[in-house]
Amino acid sequence: MTKESKIPGPTIERLALYSRPLETFVESDTPIVSSEKLADLCGVNPAQVRKDLAYFGEFGVRGVGYEAQELLREIRRILGTDREWELCIVGMGNLGMSLVENDNFRNRGYRFVAAFDLSPRKAGMRLPCGLTIQPARNIPEQIAKLRIELGIITTPSREAQRAAELLLKANVKGILNFSSAQVRTPECCIVENVDLSVKLENLVYHLETLYKKK
Amino acid sequence: MTKESKIPGPTIERLALYSRPLETFVESDTPIVSSEKLADLCGVNPAQVRKDLAYFGEFGVRGVGYEAQELLREIRRILGTDREWELCIVGMGNLGMSLVENDNFRNRGYRFVAAFDLSPRKAGMRLPCGLTIQPARNIPEQIAKLRIELGIITTPSREAQRAAELLLKANVKGILNFSSAQVRTPECCIVENVDLSVKLENLVYHLETLYKKK
Repeated sequence: MTKESKIPGPTIERLALYSRPLETFVESDTPIVSSEKLADLCGVNPAQVRKDLAYFGEFGVRGVGYEAQELLREIRRILGTDREWELCIVGMGNLGMSLVENDNFRNRGYRFVAAFDLSPRKAGMRLPCGLTIQPARNIPEQIAKLRIELGIITTPSREAQRAAELLLKANVKGILNFSSAQVRTPECCIVENVDLSVKLENLVYHLETLYKKK
Repeated sequence: MTKESKIPGPTIERLALYSRPLETFVESDTPIVSSEKLADLCGVNPAQVRKDLAYFGEFGVRGVGYEAQELLREIRRILGTDREWELCIVGMGNLGMSLVENDNFRNRGYRFVAAFDLSPRKAGMRLPCGLTIQPARNIPEQIAKLRIELGIITTPSREAQRAAELLLKANVKGILNFSSAQVRTPECCIVENVDLSVKLENLVYHLETLYKKK
């Protein structure tokens, strides 16, 4: 997370969330969407939607709604997802295998162009998506050749730091870390940690609030 | 997301995040942690940490810090993670396989006690965690017998709604949906959607902000 940026992290995450139903509206030729509808589909309140969008200028017409296609285009421009991003992934266990096949990545212009595993045993294995698993020693050459900017870590925790260092040496600018270990990187590289169990805590909290007899 | 609750969703998510380094402090016998240190480890600002904790009462001593063990205990009580939760999972592809082995779930008291797949082909397969994949028809009986409250969906998108309906019929109270499809449920069941690519949008936004020549 950069300190330079003034937009709160949760707003950025919600913009990404808003883009999901907007994609559906655009695909189904629904031209206009209200903040109420968008909020409802994303599980937030309408005032939050309006507040988040207000950070980036004037969107929509009061009492009418937002033009779905225009809003989606703007959100993508703001997020930087209006272009393709080349990704590599390190750690081809079950999680790595599932991510390279995940629709959400593909649909949003994130293209996996290289897959590595720290264990040489897996090298040479052909994946359903067309990639072949490469050994760790290929990381620098492949990242330079394919101009890869982002790396995803899906190794076991104990190997996460080593994976991060290999990616850093190859000048990757950003890392998405799915392992449960925190990785240390210099400031030139941004790391986002993904903890797959965090949303479960959210869910449990809301269940306790709903069901608990106080 | 419930409308009843007044604590913002992002605060709940951050409480879960704060608990991660606190666990490390407690394990390493570090008794006191400052809001600055905690904030730094979680990638948020110290004022945010203090504001989030203030929702739940008085924590810590000004100028000294928080007692790590006490704060962790309080956060777990607030989140409802001070007890074990029994989980089942529907969809034993790569993602399902990776989640049942994920340390983050196990370490926080989320126990996978049943694994199902909608395809009968996988039924009977023994997993490294000790569970055996069961066919969909076993869902109601197993959920009742094992008193399972939470279900995780890791099916392909096209099967997500069917999985949700099977879980609902079996009276699961909460669903964590990892598929890219939105699932529709009545209000008695809370659904949290996990989009594995959302954090990537966060990362890309920060990279664009850092590197873009305006």
